[in-house]
Amino acid sequence: MPRINGERLLADLRRMADFGRYQTGVHRPHLSPQDVESRHWLASRMKKAGLEPVIDGVGTVLGKSARTGPRILLGSHSDTQPRGGWLDGAMGVIYGLEVARALAEDPETAHLAVDVASWADEEGHWGQMVGSRSFVGMFGDAEIDKARHRDEGTAMRDALRAAGLEGKPREQFEEGRYRGYLEAHIEQGGVLEATDKRIGIVTAIVGIYAYRLTFTGIQNHAGTTPMPIRKDAGVAMMRLYNEVMETFPRLAGPRSVWTVGKMSLEPGAPAIIPGKAEMLFQFRDADRAILDRFEAALMEIAASHDKRGPCAIECVNLSRTMPTVMDDRFLDAIEESAATHAPGRHMRMSSGAGHDAQIIGLKLPAAMLFVPSIGGISHHFTENTADADIVLGCQVFADATAKILEGN
Amino acid sequence: MPRINGERLLADLRRMADFGRYQTGVHRPHLSPQDVESRHWLASRMKKAGLEPVIDGVGTVLGKSARTGPRILLGSHSDTQPRGGWLDGAMGVIYGLEVARALAEDPETAHLAVDVASWADEEGHWGQMVGSRSFVGMFGDAEIDKARHRDEGTAMRDALRAAGLEGKPREQFEEGRYRGYLEAHIEQGGVLEATDKRIGIVTAIVGIYAYRLTFTGIQNHAGTTPMPIRKDAGVAMMRLYNEVMETFPRLAGPRSVWTVGKMSLEPGAPAIIPGKAEMLFQFRDADRAILDRFEAALMEIAASHDKRGPCAIECVNLSRTMPTVMDDRFLDAIEESAATHAPGRHMRMSSGAGHDAQIIGLKLPAAMLFVPSIGGISHHFTENTADADIVLGCQVFADATAKILEGN
Repeated sequence: MPRINGERLLADLRRMADFGRYQTGVHRPHLSPQDVESRHWLASRMKKAGLEPVIDGVGTVLGKSARTGPRILLGSHSDTQPRGGWLDGAMGVIYGLEVARALAEDPETAHLAVDVASWADEEGHWGQMVGSRSFVGMFGDAEIDKARHRDEGTAMRDALRAAGLEGKPREQFEEGRYRGYLEAHIEQGGVLEATDKRIGIVTAIVGIYAYRLTFTGIQNHAGTTPMPIRKDAGVAMMRLYNEVMETFPRLAGPRSVWTVGKMSLEPGAPAIIPGKAEMLFQFRDADRAILDRFEAALMEIAASHDKRGPCAIECVNLSRTMPTVMDDRFLDAIEESAATHAPGRHMRMSSGAGHDAQIIGLKLPAAMLFVPSIGGISHHFTENTADADIVLGCQVFADATAKILEGN
Repeated sequence: MPRINGERLLADLRRMADFGRYQTGVHRPHLSPQDVESRHWLASRMKKAGLEPVIDGVGTVLGKSARTGPRILLGSHSDTQPRGGWLDGAMGVIYGLEVARALAEDPETAHLAVDVASWADEEGHWGQMVGSRSFVGMFGDAEIDKARHRDEGTAMRDALRAAGLEGKPREQFEEGRYRGYLEAHIEQGGVLEATDKRIGIVTAIVGIYAYRLTFTGIQNHAGTTPMPIRKDAGVAMMRLYNEVMETFPRLAGPRSVWTVGKMSLEPGAPAIIPGKAEMLFQFRDADRAILDRFEAALMEIAASHDKRGPCAIECVNLSRTMPTVMDDRFLDAIEESAATHAPGRHMRMSSGAGHDAQIIGLKLPAAMLFVPSIGGISHHFTENTADADIVLGCQVFADATAKILEGN
């Protein structure tokens, strides 16, 4: 079995965190100068590990193995959220690099081919999971032409030119090249920590359905308009929200989640009855049947409230991302490795957050491994994982990779 | 009985609407150039009507009668909301002017003394009901020193200087000078129109209690945080709002109103569980016992939700304006006049909006008369009242004034 080098792994991770360091975290949005610099450093580390690296036309770094044995693709992303954590994404990329090195160093596994990817813009500054979607043919030149930075409005073409990537080919998925795809990531939640586990084996990445609900009543004076004749859009929104919160638990699976993240009233003055209200609602589950059940219930509640009045209610679907189910044999391989290195301290779970594995999983058998997030914190510069958990996770990841490539 | 001149009344009202005309309404915030110009024009009209006008140190225009008979004060305000209506305030001022003229023209009432006021800044650009409060000693030099324009931040002292009012004395209430105070106003609601009435006799001006409710939970990832461990501040807000909406109708009087005019979630992103939520809540009634009952219920609901958790709830009172009860004999006088000119088409009602009468009413017996608002619209440039209702209302107002001054 290959043995990873924990010190080398942590040293590479810490070096990576120098690019865009922000307090105890990192500010390294895709195609920022720090991000571009980090990609060149990453490519040099891949080259040193014996891989042939390219930085492609959207910024994805792909290190290709020259070995001729059975081949796997390992990856994650090295771009970050604004003022985000040092491990969110980067850990999975450096795991890939370390596993490639560890397998090459072990005579028993030296023939196995490990390609390593850092997918461009997983955090979605220019689109949604740009690198992995470009790789499987879901994000092409037309999308690049239109893409603008979500905060700054810069054209992606200009940013690619500034990064020296203009005109470079985009790496494309090749049928038959890989046995599958594996991705490691921090959990970004508190389940592993709360249950004293060290390894999460991700059975599925949840699907997300998102909606905008708009309530239209009549704006009026809060002193002179009697209650019975009011058409208060805020009250209509509260009533619907309340019924959703009463109905959804009855339809939910054990890991279903639903969230109103944004609400507003217009005009939003203390002495004016709101004539318009709006809320953004989303729900997630790994089971599509539950997602469809939620949607049907939401639409029925919205329609019945609209019909009852006094406010008009519009419920518009904004997006539907389908759940991605991970490969059973890959899950078994990770579980066996976890049982060896962390007996009794591993569990199967779904991922509530989106990952590149849900895109690559459309083309290849895929699976994911989680390590615990301290305090469940993510998308914040205080995000962290114990060093021992980082090292343990990589050893399990290496074993699972070898098992999958050595299997029939 | 005095006879008002409907054409003269409407002509003065239309001339007044030239100052700051905006579409079919008026933009004439207090101390704007158009407002200052309109006050000089109003003073000239008072002078022509035989009154002695002053524009005082906060901008109130007070026209004093030289007659020596029993004396009354009639008034309202001629400043407007931004892009507001042409009648909101101005109508009551011109009613006063027309009643002073009509009483002077009738030999039977020519000895009666009518003073007419246009109170400064009723719409509260610099404070709350600045002119009437200055008149009764509730807004003095210290308040003027601190006052700044609510939208533009200009110092009131600078605006008074620009208006040529710096150093002018402020008119002060004089004990024993008046039998009482009358104010006419548009209804600003739809009750008169809906019940086919033409005259409202205002029995009380409602009190207003206002609150800020703050809900504190824990901000977290909307995908990776299981429902049972969430502390969602938005859900806490919705639950409390819902209980308030279920409880208040049981405690309410027939004209009680309660309104959430503003709500917000932080950080307000679709995929983040809100860690903080805030809402502004107010309720109004003419009966203080009901206001106190509402407050007790609100505090109890907030405390029980806070105790139950998982979010901390803070409920802070922002203001308590007490209800003002109008004078019974004055109400009888208005009612008798209404019965003569609009038999069966008058009603007693409370005012859900605030008016200068609630300030002057602290010192003098006071009453108000309402005329219908078309479609119940106010604080908007489309606000209007039928010409026939404007004329009718002024005739009733004149008769009531004469009755009150001629009574013992």
